[in-house]
Amino acid sequence: MRVVVLRLGHRPERDKRITTHVGLVARAFGASEMLLTGRDAHIEESLKDAASRWGGNFAGSFALKSDVSWKGEVIRWKEAGGKVVHLTMYGSNLPDVIDEIRGSENILVAVGAEKVPAEMYQLADWNVAVGNQPHSEVAALAVFLDRLFLGRELVEDFAGGLKIVPSARGKQVIYPEHTEKI
Amino acid sequence: MRVVVLRLGHRPERDKRITTHVGLVARAFGASEMLLTGRDAHIEESLKDAASRWGGNFAGSFALKSDVSWKGEVIRWKEAGGKVVHLTMYGSNLPDVIDEIRGSENILVAVGAEKVPAEMYQLADWNVAVGNQPHSEVAALAVFLDRLFLGRELVEDFAGGLKIVPSARGKQVIYPEHTEKI
Repeated sequence: MRVVVLRLGHRPERDKRITTHVGLVARAFGASEMLLTGRDAHIEESLKDAASRWGGNFAGSFALKSDVSWKGEVIRWKEAGGKVVHLTMYGSNLPDVIDEIRGSENILVAVGAEKVPAEMYQLADWNVAVGNQPHSEVAALAVFLDRLFLGRELVEDFAGGLKIVPSARGKQVIYPEHTEKI
Repeated sequence: MRVVVLRLGHRPERDKRITTHVGLVARAFGASEMLLTGRDAHIEESLKDAASRWGGNFAGSFALKSDVSWKGEVIRWKEAGGKVVHLTMYGSNLPDVIDEIRGSENILVAVGAEKVPAEMYQLADWNVAVGNQPHSEVAALAVFLDRLFLGRELVEDFAGGLKIVPSARGKQVIYPEHTEKI
């Protein structure tokens, strides 16, 4: 299964940290790419840094593509046979649709900032709510991917880069050449 | 089970949107309260607004307490017999400890910003990683609570306030007096 995250309506100054978190979640939870409407040096830097220090995820090496047209990407994706999920608090509740969604081979997951164009609701194959309460697109994406991959993403190995050894106390990190206790 | 979220190391200008998302996730995913080191009018306003428009969650009405001493709260919590979970990418991986944690009656969940004091790792009953990759405290909290409550929080009714009717297309909201299609 291939998952790409499309971040809609990013406003550079205001959204830079939230969108960075969206991108880091996309990578850590098994997406292979993030598409961003607009461009933001801060986000490019943060995601490049994470990928170079922490390696590739089970989808391969994580990529960021900036300055995309959201509608162009959605239409192209659908024409190629892929499915589109739009995360919104107004959508069908996650537990009711996730099994059906999991049957798809290629999934584009759209996550908006404040205001999403009405057309997005129409173009999506599924409008999905991670609970019907207001919270966070970062949280919605994480829980969606966790349910989509059935928790597999939390235990998969990431290839290359630093590795954390899970530990009950303190910090244990394995570097390519040596192990160090911080 | 009672869950309270403790937000550590909040820096007002820089973290206001991330901490707001942490608070909204805490409320939407079934915590009863957020404790904040420091004070931030933006966050107080956002959380008050969410609670007054969208009602109380299954833990009751969500509260924010500002200007707490993180260490004082942690120590008081433990003295009262509660358990403390600290979310950190260096901790034990979530799937390995969540069943054990779920046996607790009162859980304080600590989520840090950039740098967390070393003492937090020692005081916590569990240091828990939601995957051992860098991503987001907003995502970590959401996935932790989703696993803790076994998904119950996504289908529970929130009492009072607006209600969204999950729908495959468009937006359907029930107001106390009438229904309106946006």
